[in-house]
Amino acid sequence: MFKGGLVITIYKSKKLNREKVLRDPIHSYIYIQHQVILDLINTREFQRLRRIRQLGTASSTFHGAEHSRFTHSVGVYEITRQICDNFQRNYPTKEDGDGLWNDNERLIALCAALLHDIGHGPYSHTFEHIFGTNHEDLTVAILTSPSTEVNKVLRAVAPEFPEKIASVIQKTYPNQQVVQMISSQIDADRMDYLLRDSYYTGTNYGTFDLKRILRVMRPYEKGITFHISGMHAVEDYIVSRFQMYQQVYFHPVSRSMEVILNRLLQRAKFLFEHNRLSQSSSPLLLLPFFENNFSVEDYIHLDDGVLNTYFIQWSRSSDKILSDLARRFLNRKPLKSARFSQETKQLLPKLRDFVTAAGYNSDYYTATNDSFDLPYDVYAPNQNRKKTQIELFQDDGTLVELSVISKLVAAITGEVSGDERFFFPKEMLASPDQIDLFTPIYEQFQKYLKNGWLFNNDNNNN
Amino acid sequence: MFKGGLVITIYKSKKLNREKVLRDPIHSYIYIQHQVILDLINTREFQRLRRIRQLGTASSTFHGAEHSRFTHSVGVYEITRQICDNFQRNYPTKEDGDGLWNDNERLIALCAALLHDIGHGPYSHTFEHIFGTNHEDLTVAILTSPSTEVNKVLRAVAPEFPEKIASVIQKTYPNQQVVQMISSQIDADRMDYLLRDSYYTGTNYGTFDLKRILRVMRPYEKGITFHISGMHAVEDYIVSRFQMYQQVYFHPVSRSMEVILNRLLQRAKFLFEHNRLSQSSSPLLLLPFFENNFSVEDYIHLDDGVLNTYFIQWSRSSDKILSDLARRFLNRKPLKSARFSQETKQLLPKLRDFVTAAGYNSDYYTATNDSFDLPYDVYAPNQNRKKTQIELFQDDGTLVELSVISKLVAAITGEVSGDERFFFPKEMLASPDQIDLFTPIYEQFQKYLKNGWLFNNDNNNN
Amino acid sequence: MFKGGLVITIYKSKKLNREKVLRDPIHSYIYIQHQVILDLINTREFQRLRRIRQLGTASSTFHGAEHSRFTHSVGVYEITRQICDNFQRNYPTKEDGDGLWNDNERLIALCAALLHDIGHGPYSHTFEHIFGTNHEDLTVAILTSPSTEVNKVLRAVAPEFPEKIASVIQKTYPNQQVVQMISSQIDADRMDYLLRDSYYTGTNYGTFDLKRILRVMRPYEKGITFHISGMHAVEDYIVSRFQMYQQVYFHPVSRSMEVILNRLLQRAKFLFEHNRLSQSSSPLLLLPFFENNFSVEDYIHLDDGVLNTYFIQWSRSSDKILSDLARRFLNRKPLKSARFSQETKQLLPKLRDFVTAAGYNSDYYTATNDSFDLPYDVYAPNQNRKKTQIELFQDDGTLVELSVISKLVAAITGEVSGDERFFFPKEMLASPDQIDLFTPIYEQFQKYLKNGWLFNNDNNNN
Amino acid sequence: MFKGGLVITIYKSKKLNREKVLRDPIHSYIYIQHQVILDLINTREFQRLRRIRQLGTASSTFHGAEHSRFTHSVGVYEITRQICDNFQRNYPTKEDGDGLWNDNERLIALCAALLHDIGHGPYSHTFEHIFGTNHEDLTVAILTSPSTEVNKVLRAVAPEFPEKIASVIQKTYPNQQVVQMISSQIDADRMDYLLRDSYYTGTNYGTFDLKRILRVMRPYEKGITFHISGMHAVEDYIVSRFQMYQQVYFHPVSRSMEVILNRLLQRAKFLFEHNRLSQSSSPLLLLPFFENNFSVEDYIHLDDGVLNTYFIQWSRSSDKILSDLARRFLNRKPLKSARFSQETKQLLPKLRDFVTAAGYNSDYYTATNDSFDLPYDVYAPNQNRKKTQIELFQDDGTLVELSVISKLVAAITGEVSGDERFFFPKEMLASPDQIDLFTPIYEQFQKYLKNGWLFNNDNNNN
Repeated sequence: MFKGGLVITIYKSKKLNREKVLRDPIHSYIYIQHQVILDLINTREFQRLRRIRQLGTASSTFHGAEHSRFTHSVGVYEITRQICDNFQRNYPTKEDGDGLWNDNERLIALCAALLHDIGHGPYSHTFEHIFGTNHEDLTVAILTSPSTEVNKVLRAVAPEFPEKIASVIQKTYPNQQVVQMISSQIDADRMDYLLRDSYYTGTNYGTFDLKRILRVMRPYEKGITFHISGMHAVEDYIVSRFQMYQQVYFHPVSRSMEVILNRLLQRAKFLFEHNRLSQSSSPLLLLPFFENNFSVEDYIHLDDGVLNTYFIQWSRSSDKILSDLARRFLNRKPLKSARFSQETKQLLPKLRDFVTAAGYNSDYYTATNDSFDLPYDVYAPNQNRKKTQIELFQDDGTLVELSVISKLVAAITGEVSGDERFFFPKEMLASPDQIDLFTPIYEQFQKYLKNGWLFNNDNNNN
Repeated sequence: MFKGGLVITIYKSKKLNREKVLRDPIHSYIYIQHQVILDLINTREFQRLRRIRQLGTASSTFHGAEHSRFTHSVGVYEITRQICDNFQRNYPTKEDGDGLWNDNERLIALCAALLHDIGHGPYSHTFEHIFGTNHEDLTVAILTSPSTEVNKVLRAVAPEFPEKIASVIQKTYPNQQVVQMISSQIDADRMDYLLRDSYYTGTNYGTFDLKRILRVMRPYEKGITFHISGMHAVEDYIVSRFQMYQQVYFHPVSRSMEVILNRLLQRAKFLFEHNRLSQSSSPLLLLPFFENNFSVEDYIHLDDGVLNTYFIQWSRSSDKILSDLARRFLNRKPLKSARFSQETKQLLPKLRDFVTAAGYNSDYYTATNDSFDLPYDVYAPNQNRKKTQIELFQDDGTLVELSVISKLVAAITGEVSGDERFFFPKEMLASPDQIDLFTPIYEQFQKYLKNGWLFNNDNNNN
Repeated sequence: MFKGGLVITIYKSKKLNREKVLRDPIHSYIYIQHQVILDLINTREFQRLRRIRQLGTASSTFHGAEHSRFTHSVGVYEITRQICDNFQRNYPTKEDGDGLWNDNERLIALCAALLHDIGHGPYSHTFEHIFGTNHEDLTVAILTSPSTEVNKVLRAVAPEFPEKIASVIQKTYPNQQVVQMISSQIDADRMDYLLRDSYYTGTNYGTFDLKRILRVMRPYEKGITFHISGMHAVEDYIVSRFQMYQQVYFHPVSRSMEVILNRLLQRAKFLFEHNRLSQSSSPLLLLPFFENNFSVEDYIHLDDGVLNTYFIQWSRSSDKILSDLARRFLNRKPLKSARFSQETKQLLPKLRDFVTAAGYNSDYYTATNDSFDLPYDVYAPNQNRKKTQIELFQDDGTLVELSVISKLVAAITGEVSGDERFFFPKEMLASPDQIDLFTPIYEQFQKYLKNGWLFNNDNNNN
Repeated sequence: MFKGGLVITIYKSKKLNREKVLRDPIHSYIYIQHQVILDLINTREFQRLRRIRQLGTASSTFHGAEHSRFTHSVGVYEITRQICDNFQRNYPTKEDGDGLWNDNERLIALCAALLHDIGHGPYSHTFEHIFGTNHEDLTVAILTSPSTEVNKVLRAVAPEFPEKIASVIQKTYPNQQVVQMISSQIDADRMDYLLRDSYYTGTNYGTFDLKRILRVMRPYEKGITFHISGMHAVEDYIVSRFQMYQQVYFHPVSRSMEVILNRLLQRAKFLFEHNRLSQSSSPLLLLPFFENNFSVEDYIHLDDGVLNTYFIQWSRSSDKILSDLARRFLNRKPLKSARFSQETKQLLPKLRDFVTAAGYNSDYYTATNDSFDLPYDVYAPNQNRKKTQIELFQDDGTLVELSVISKLVAAITGEVSGDERFFFPKEMLASPDQIDLFTPIYEQFQKYLKNGWLFNNDNNNN
């Protein structure tokens, strides 16, 4: 495909004889014009993304959302390609430092867009929490390790090309236009996942006017800005994102499945560390991670199906907790949950005691949300104002920050979204007519719940 | 949930206090009204369908088509529910034998609709071919084996209920209205998969006017008919189905991936049978199938991820053929193909010889389409006219068969769709400038291809 | 169709032998089940709504938005029908005063929904301003005047039925559930127009999850409430409505066309009152309105086409102002506009003087937004808190007002949306290179404009 | 805007400083890049298309289909623009006669696309039939008459430019690529109207894969061809068109409204010619047409609203036939119809006699379909094989005609679609329980109808 120094020079700018397209439900078609992009898609590291779901456990709530990181990655590439086309058509640089678009940056932007999630593994969030991996570090590793096919393709462009792509993803690349295309409050990544997750879940909260946003987007010396005439389209995007977080990404049932997954891996690790994981339960491809001694190669062999396969094995384990948690995960038996406030947080120890009294090991059968970061960022310019706020471009050349002129955006700016929840077995909500040994415990437990919140029943009963 | 004789009587007709809904991209919502349906969805056998893709290898061509049999199954249930509602509202039976709808059949229809694919396993078509399983038999086994959760739920309705559901799926149930809802030329199954596969692939060939078809559908003594005013909507459905077969289901790349999968499992079975499958390549959950001694329980433990996990293990095998085929499958390296006619079929031995000469074992690296049945049926009333033709209802009560009045349907009636293809390694198409030991062989091979067909070059060169 | 006392009793509840449907792009189908509804649709007063555009001049900005009040009216009917179905299925009254739904109210609700806009005329807003008509009074007149076909149909249901329908539209009907279905912050009227106007303009700002809102809607003793689990769907509806106002209903170009229309009718009225409207410009069907002596019959003869026909006649008038304004309206030559604040309002007399100096009669060629009310209401519970705020229903039966728990809604609650604008001829923006007698005046005028606002240039030039 | 010789040279290629866009529901945006195109849209002749509905009486059947010829015309322009972009990007000419695309033809193609329907008037088909006008001749007249604004803009490009555009529309322009873009079996005109009419009617029969068709379209020396890989997309387009004709364009209710319109204008003309049209019924703007002495200027003053205004006047006429037909048209009271065959055609005189006997003047109250041509062409290569058949391009450069390889297209090729119908007053179908003087006549009449067809009852009763 690419051999020797002579070809390298050509390879960088090699266009396909004829554009190739991938049919895509969100963008109709993904247009592939460079040999490099086609070669990257054909690497095993990229193909592996087909076997990792974009939204992890979310399909347990929204059954349609079974799409993979592969589909999202080509979508981010396509939006970036469209941004580059627009910039090149309307804002081509004329001289250095004029703040306009230099189309020599195109291939860097396209590769970074395509590969920005290449380091993700199965159930990334929970996996990282248990095994101490980090998908951003792994992205860099996959880009820069000579053992990967991705690295081989990138190196064929230029020896320093893999590191360049890595620096875009790490946001240290000098050209902030390229960085912000891939990673900012309103970037190709977020725009694709909102539209895509909306489509696959079957909700319509995430829809916004992509074509209009692309139209008003323009480069400037410090990155990317938007013409003020598109303010409402940008505002609509921010509100859509907020709605998707509230209604999809933060959904309690999906989070509850993440809790079970976390507890399941925690139990397996515990058993492994105490040599109590039987031979028939041994997770061959996971062993390097249990042993905390894994290579990039080991990581590349993981996907959702690999983990699920071990869960199936574990569902037959003689360890009751391991097999029960595995079955709850595989057969979608979510924990229940209730919200709590700073004030009702004090009730948690008492509630855990009830769960213990009802026969559950509360280390494995309860959890609070604290241990789970939010899976995606939310617009919060106060925290990192310098880097990511959205600037609108006015006719006289001045900029104005979005939340200054949008009441809607101001309303959700800097707010901590999401909620804190206490998770517990559904059995605790059993009704009294279901005769059971633990009925009195259930009844006591239930007195502390009201309208979906923990409720300090003790105070009221004084 | 259901215990003892007394509850059984109630269970059958138990409605949920409040309708539950599942969000669905195709039908907006799936409405669940019976406790029985909710309990069936929550069984492990049904939840397992989340881990089996509806379209097998099709996502290698249409990357969006990663949806599972779970989503399709609840969709078939929902369409059936809407048909029952319509029948009950507009065509309720008044006396036995009047050919109208008896709503006591509703629960049977709903359960059969929901469970019609419960016996499907991973990559069903190829799996069945290699291991001699049969998904229809396995559906019946899962419905009727006392060991399954599905059977337990069904038995709680009535002791003979599992067999009733099985008979609907086997088309032997006396009420043909129920049978045809689930299985006929224009049934809930086909209607859901066309709309769903269209949506997820991002093509629009499969769209048709579901609402209009449901409106004109009506029961009669021998099954289901359609009012003639909806003729064009039915016609459009038939044409849409034809288009989906031509453009999606028969796509050569997806079929090529099926070929690789077939060869891969064939090689693993061969190695197993010759004791050449190493310990580290041992497919724990597949062993009962290699040994041809499996239980329903064993079958239920399989899913796409389990097979893929063994493919990952095999990709590291020391057997070159096994590891190469596993990598081709995992990393999406399809074989190439060309169509052949009855006339050019005679070229196949010669072409296989070229493939062998180029260093490939042609038993594993070539195939023809012959060994693969078509994955779905096509409208072909000539073959089984009695059971499945579409009858239109006229105002004076007479029926007329669809293809009699639709030129479009007549055009594709009884036609054998699809094509016969010869599959071979992509490497055979290498161009002469890619210097290679086998270049002369490639060149000879390529002389027998033209415009996507095998071509009898020898004749022309006389 | 309906004759004599005997039939009257039957007529009220007469269902069609077979449901009739109208194909509709928003709701797929409009289902018609009552003979009364079919008869109302077939009246000349209702058919006339086909010739009156729903959005008046908005199609001059969004060319797709050419839909009529007919399409919207049947849409409001359909949503109301779905609400009734849901209420009857899930919340049927058991005893008087239980706050649940009494399905005897259905026909009243359906008729009121269908007829709520029956009194609208061509370009209602401007027409009313010039001729002192009022579409709500005219709605009541059409419902209750014995001369109309609508009244004849309604009377056939019951003698007092026309007044009942009128009282629903006037919000004085005792059952507030019926009133709020048709007229409240989140009623069938608003829900249909948001979805419909979105669809026809081709924007997607107005889309929201109708099915989910219908699911969480429920009756209570004081009207209609929403289950709190649907809070985000309701919130999304409010935000969508806000966006549609900002981006579609308040669009400056459409408003500018309204300004021209207003000035055109004002000029014609002036000429008529001074006997300067020539015979060939005489607007036969409008004369009763110029003479301020019109009947319901006269009003029913008006539609958009009638007014436009007179505008075509007037475009050939010898009165320069009349013919010029008519041509600007017919040929879409909008005025330009700039926003002004309380502070820059003082500039208006000076700017009007410039317009006069450039040769335009500023009484006809300038305007401010003041003279135009907002075409639709905006969520503003502070103003009329009693009647229209949105209450959410919690599991323990208590209600909570939407803006209390939604930051987004709180952000736009009670805000006066829209902007104040000064309209003037586009010619005032001529650039200096277009040599013109008035160039110096244009240049002076333009100094008072900046970034789309009036700008107090005098201060800055001190 | 454009003055003097110097500017003319520049005007032709003048691009807007910044692309302008029109929001469009079908194509998202219409992109306007040339000053010429913007100026053409702003002419009064083009703006007038906003007041003429694309589908005439079809909105009486599909109420959503109220869109104007303006929206369709900008849509045809936009598709043509996309075709030019694709051709210029992928198939730019290198030397004269290579059969590839010369982008100097772009402005001609765009103008012809935009203006192809500029000669259409209100209810074109019927209007032409009564008044002997011809919309193609009028298109040429509007393009080439010095009195029109359109001509003024075109002349500013080049003196011979108006005639060039006219020759494209008349298909005599030498470059057949340009001609076929605008007018062939699969041109920008048909592609836009299928998608647009589908969208506005709310049916989905007309949808097809525009993006894919644009992708496979390519220029060759004799016009336009399609790569064979897109065969199924082209096939789907042909089938969609067939379906739209069957279900929308040929709908009996819309045709019945055309019949009434025809009879209404026929009656008015008769009264005018016999001096029996009263002063208050005088149709000022129509007089030149009644007098058969009209100018282009007169024609430009007509639109749907103008005709409807006179219909409203006529609905108050003392001539019973004129006022009744006017009211039937305005208030949507369609005639009923039945199909007839060559055999049952002989029944027509007898049936007309029944209608006369029931008190209707059968010259005005009956009609057959014969007098109405089909409103759009249908794929019929046999009739005009030379010009319009669809050729598919194979990899080796040879062409193959579509119907040769598509069974579906072959099935509808050369078929005369549509049906012959006899129209009569709905009152003829009155049921016997509606006591009426003419009941016996109705009963006799109805004996000749069966399943929607005329039926030779006399034979059967022998």
